[in-house]
Amino acid sequence: MSSAAPLGRGPKVRAAVLAATVVELSERGYSAFTVDNVAQRAGVHKTTVYRRWPDRDALIADALADSVAAEIPIPDTGSVEDDLRALARSLVGWINSPSGRAVLAVMLPSAGLPAPPDATRHVFRDRIRRALPVVARAITRGEIPSGTNAAEMIKTLVAPIYLRVLITGESVDDTTADAAAALSLTAARAGLFS
Amino acid sequence: MSSAAPLGRGPKVRAAVLAATVVELSERGYSAFTVDNVAQRAGVHKTTVYRRWPDRDALIADALADSVAAEIPIPDTGSVEDDLRALARSLVGWINSPSGRAVLAVMLPSAGLPAPPDATRHVFRDRIRRALPVVARAITRGEIPSGTNAAEMIKTLVAPIYLRVLITGESVDDTTADAAAALSLTAARAGLFS
Repeated sequence: MSSAAPLGRGPKVRAAVLAATVVELSERGYSAFTVDNVAQRAGVHKTTVYRRWPDRDALIADALADSVAAEIPIPDTGSVEDDLRALARSLVGWINSPSGRAVLAVMLPSAGLPAPPDATRHVFRDRIRRALPVVARAITRGEIPSGTNAAEMIKTLVAPIYLRVLITGESVDDTTADAAAALSLTAARAGLFS
Repeated sequence: MSSAAPLGRGPKVRAAVLAATVVELSERGYSAFTVDNVAQRAGVHKTTVYRRWPDRDALIADALADSVAAEIPIPDTGSVEDDLRALARSLVGWINSPSGRAVLAVMLPSAGLPAPPDATRHVFRDRIRRALPVVARAITRGEIPSGTNAAEMIKTLVAPIYLRVLITGESVDDTTADAAAALSLTAARAGLFS
């Protein structure tokens, strides 16, 4: 019977459960999300899910971080300017995609509660961690000052993009992304993140 | 009888209705907001409200813009650096105040709908319009390049603050505000908004 349960254990279970989580979130939203539905969609037992994730919010945080990591890869072009542009353009492309919109809708604060859900903070910390090498390599190449705070630099890169999506309601495109990259690089070179 | 109805007409009606709107929004939230309740709280007839505002969203947009304008004054210190710091610090103070939190909660996109309500766009356009003189005076004083796009400069000033409030969940304070002012000014001087 074990061959009939390919999702019984290992990394495949993790991938299947996380993928099912993102689909469930996209289709039902956060408030109607249940671990039962995820388990059913992933073809695993509910206890298999709870063995790996203590609660639904931990599962959601992991699933969103994995989804964003897959859709917004960390570039390594050999130039910090090109890396920043690629990163900002990937973010813009993701925001403009149906799956990006769906994930963003879950990550946003609910009306009446102006504080981001834990999952959002988790995803953002994960993004910063993954993007650290972009800044480290730029320092090694002498493109920006040593001691540049990578987290501050990455936040400056994405802030103008999120402002437009969340506050001003402007559309975002490659021009927005390139301007954000120029802003972040100019500030780093001026020593604002040191 | 006319002396018994001091709110019957004129600017006082407008002020009373707008103030009542902000209180109603703070106490009940957007979804439970009604023009009936606003009229009752302001001591005017509902038709008086509808004579001035075509619908509840127009009323809300006006009320939020007026409230923000009152709580985040536009500075004129004689120095663009001081003006930007004062503006950013006022924004941070407002975000950290109960009334700021309440207004922000209404302005935020609802979960499942990642686009800001019309009122948010209206408030932000109003903020940009009011802040234009800060940039214009800086250009006149030769502190930043002529041709600097004021809207882009102001958006760059506030973007790092909103990112922390809406996405990363970090607290914001005067240090956040001063860093945002330095970022905006550095970028303007580098010609990024020209």
